[in-house]
Amino acid sequence: MNGLSLFKRASRAFDDYPTLAKLIVVCTVSGGGYVAYADANSTSGAHAIAPVSEIRKKKVVVVGTGWAGTSFLKKLNNPSYDVQVISPRNYFAFTPLLPSVTCGTVEARSIVEPIRSIVRKKGVNVSYCEAECFKIDADNKKVYCRPNPDSSMNGEEEFAVDYDYLVIAMGARPNTFNTPGVVEHCNFLKEVEDAQRIRRSVIDSFEKASLPTLSDEERKRILHFVVVGGGPTGVEFAAELHDFVNDDLVKLYPAAKDFVQITLLEAADHILNMFDKRITDFAEKKFHRDGIDVRLGSMVVKVSDKEISTKVRGNGGEITAIPYGMVVWSTGIGTHPVIRNFMQQIGQTNRRALATDEWLRVEGCNSIYALGDCATINQRKVMEDIAAIFKKADKDNSGTLTVKEFQEVIDDICERYPQVELHLKSKKMRDIADLLKMAKGDVAKEAIELDIEEFKKALSEVDSQMKNLPATAQVAAQQGTYLANCFNRMEEAEKNPEGPIRFREEGRHRFRPFRYILILYKAILPLSVYRCLAFLHHA
Amino acid sequence: MNGLSLFKRASRAFDDYPTLAKLIVVCTVSGGGYVAYADANSTSGAHAIAPVSEIRKKKVVVVGTGWAGTSFLKKLNNPSYDVQVISPRNYFAFTPLLPSVTCGTVEARSIVEPIRSIVRKKGVNVSYCEAECFKIDADNKKVYCRPNPDSSMNGEEEFAVDYDYLVIAMGARPNTFNTPGVVEHCNFLKEVEDAQRIRRSVIDSFEKASLPTLSDEERKRILHFVVVGGGPTGVEFAAELHDFVNDDLVKLYPAAKDFVQITLLEAADHILNMFDKRITDFAEKKFHRDGIDVRLGSMVVKVSDKEISTKVRGNGGEITAIPYGMVVWSTGIGTHPVIRNFMQQIGQTNRRALATDEWLRVEGCNSIYALGDCATINQRKVMEDIAAIFKKADKDNSGTLTVKEFQEVIDDICERYPQVELHLKSKKMRDIADLLKMAKGDVAKEAIELDIEEFKKALSEVDSQMKNLPATAQVAAQQGTYLANCFNRMEEAEKNPEGPIRFREEGRHRFRPFRYILILYKAILPLSVYRCLAFLHHA
Repeated sequence: MNGLSLFKRASRAFDDYPTLAKLIVVCTVSGGGYVAYADANSTSGAHAIAPVSEIRKKKVVVVGTGWAGTSFLKKLNNPSYDVQVISPRNYFAFTPLLPSVTCGTVEARSIVEPIRSIVRKKGVNVSYCEAECFKIDADNKKVYCRPNPDSSMNGEEEFAVDYDYLVIAMGARPNTFNTPGVVEHCNFLKEVEDAQRIRRSVIDSFEKASLPTLSDEERKRILHFVVVGGGPTGVEFAAELHDFVNDDLVKLYPAAKDFVQITLLEAADHILNMFDKRITDFAEKKFHRDGIDVRLGSMVVKVSDKEISTKVRGNGGEITAIPYGMVVWSTGIGTHPVIRNFMQQIGQTNRRALATDEWLRVEGCNSIYALGDCATINQRKVMEDIAAIFKKADKDNSGTLTVKEFQEVIDDICERYPQVELHLKSKKMRDIADLLKMAKGDVAKEAIELDIEEFKKALSEVDSQMKNLPATAQVAAQQGTYLANCFNRMEEAEKNPEGPIRFREEGRHRFRPFRYILILYKAILPLSVYRCLAFLHHA
Repeated sequence: MNGLSLFKRASRAFDDYPTLAKLIVVCTVSGGGYVAYADANSTSGAHAIAPVSEIRKKKVVVVGTGWAGTSFLKKLNNPSYDVQVISPRNYFAFTPLLPSVTCGTVEARSIVEPIRSIVRKKGVNVSYCEAECFKIDADNKKVYCRPNPDSSMNGEEEFAVDYDYLVIAMGARPNTFNTPGVVEHCNFLKEVEDAQRIRRSVIDSFEKASLPTLSDEERKRILHFVVVGGGPTGVEFAAELHDFVNDDLVKLYPAAKDFVQITLLEAADHILNMFDKRITDFAEKKFHRDGIDVRLGSMVVKVSDKEISTKVRGNGGEITAIPYGMVVWSTGIGTHPVIRNFMQQIGQTNRRALATDEWLRVEGCNSIYALGDCATINQRKVMEDIAAIFKKADKDNSGTLTVKEFQEVIDDICERYPQVELHLKSKKMRDIADLLKMAKGDVAKEAIELDIEEFKKALSEVDSQMKNLPATAQVAAQQGTYLANCFNRMEEAEKNPEGPIRFREEGRHRFRPFRYILILYKAILPLSVYRCLAFLHHA
């Protein structure tokens, strides 16, 4: 019940563009990502466009109904598009609560929302089709689809859908690192069905272990629950399972108590290693107290139907086989086959996800956008453009840059290259930041000159700490909202560009680039620390 | 929400032995069954038995966790038994609400209750085992079981469980009348999983029909929902589906509206033909107004993947093939294979269900009880015992029976042969009933004599209108409660029998025979008439 109201509060906050009063904005996390107030909030102008029913509407095809696709659909309000949504899943799922569904803390029904309800009340013409996209043809602006293979229908034909704009938001697949036996024997925890399957599987294990014919050793194996991957999902699932077993199941299966064991296998040195060390320590100690066996430096090399084989670091490569009853595999995300195929088509090889620019446009493709877990923003390096920036900033073409000239262009630089803004706040750039601020209005200081080499030196370390955004629900949702706002203002921005100066060309960018804001919801504060962080990481 | 609270109220009423103030007791229904205040309410003496932990406890094996098995377990409170429950289903389901689960009116979770929670708080030692019984060996007092085949476990061995008393409450299977294609292509509506499958299937149909590649004809086929069987389950499902489609789905799938059709096929002349004609008429008219196509006299002869073939009575045996998208098959119950096998073993052939006596003991077996849908009470005919009854009533062995003698024995007759009590209330017996009543205290009238032929004549029609009890949840639940009360008082009743006189032997029966009380819950009155009746029929 608590979980449900939490979800409600959190998702409401998500939907309604929470005001600052409701939020705690955190400025940096070790998980990476830029922090700023993105322009996603400034929807002004969205309603200024006149109805355009008489001219042919542009057709937007959205592939996927996860966080990215759904938040795009929720925010799109420009009636000049015809939108076609394609996804094998006709609902949106609030995935951060999936670990809670595995143990019945939250009911599956409470974390899903039908896509058709989401889109039907909009002024925009949106239609949905339960199908999976299996091929993208960028040359002919078509996506190829087939009806949902999960549905019992057979004998249908594949079909093609044309687009003017394509929004790819297909998400990712669980990453098995090609470990043998994982697909056959492990449970994943990415979809609602996964969570429901795990729930049944946990109860099944207790029922099996209660059969009269088993040896104690066999009972012990059946009630050995193994979680592979010490990230937020794995940690949260292990914690939920521990509570479920100790609060509920031991009462119903009193004889099983002595046989239950939960083990968490993590290949790295620590669990939750994307967070601060204090958090990691706290979680590890808590698990230790709870009797959850955390095995660090354990890499799974093979899974069979009753044993999971691990190689423990510093153990001479020796392989240990651990008998188990159920495994949940949660080691991060891998590339969706359709995306891998498309990446080969457009020459983006050896990447985990589709590369886009800061406006979420797929590199090398016109009219295709990608967001969420299937995409990464390939951030432009300042150093690649340093000459162009210097040239544009040097308004009098003197070959040197006064502090005043630098001052005048710094906002555009920060906007176009968000790494600069982050860097300005770090210690290394403090001198320049102070200079630019203090010099304001001080004619003497404003006249100080930098040549190109000094300018380069000032910005030399800016690119070094760029990190990809985390593959989280929060990033995906913000990207969806950002892109919808761009689509809402497309025509107006054509006339009145609102982005930063184009350093390598004339004029301004149509839109400000995407910025990620890390938001911590107050609603999650009552949760224990690791759950809170897991939630944060997802949401 | 309404459904849920209804369930809560109804099930609470069920659990707590509702007082008369809460009930409306109906005296006869065309569906058959005796009506009386059964002794199920008189639990006095149940707690009088001292703990018997020092002597070997009798082992009671209960097979099945439906209405009969669960109500037995709920009411059993005598700690002198060791109880072993065996069922592939580790929960009890409130089956009358299954049609509501098919359309999401009620969530599956709300209508189930884990067996382990039900039994764990009792003073009685009850253990549960998730397995299916596949063979009953009455000679050696053993049941043979194997682990639940639905669970993913493999390689377990079968095992045997000994019993002192066996309570068979395995329920029944859907009856397909061996119609070809039914098992392969139809949905049943007996289990929670069935209801959930139907729910997914209905939505799937709407999604399929929304695919762009289909012809209108194909769309019409996919959205043609066929219900086979106009009993309460089929009628209630058709009504729920109609509301679901018209209240919810047409909003989400506006294009589908013109293609949806619900058809109800009934082989007999009317739907709900176990109820009063006015109810039948009402339901048929309501369905007609709602646009549900009720086809009476239509017998299904074959089901293929896309067509259902019916033979319409009075149509020269011509077979019509109807294209459909989904079928729900609900034509009553058939025999469970394990029961059929057991019936052959004990020589009960050519029956639909296990025959028991009025005390729910399986005929021809010691220590085996059967209740619920897998059993029928084989009622003792008065005419078979008429000589013994006359002899016992004729206390002075005069060869004739005075009205006074008849008066003295009539209560025992009514108790042992419940058909007599029912018959006494009917017109045909009014004379005798009046005579017996009016003669009381009137010496002249009490002295009127009947010989055996007159006595036979008076009771001649009593047996003719005996009917089996309906295969409903209410009967099963009352039988479970009745039997638990017998078990609770077993030892005491040995010493102080509380049943009627044994007419063919000496002494009294240990217990009063089972009587079915038809109960209408006030809680269901707000429902529409056919739903109310469907509920009544189930519950």
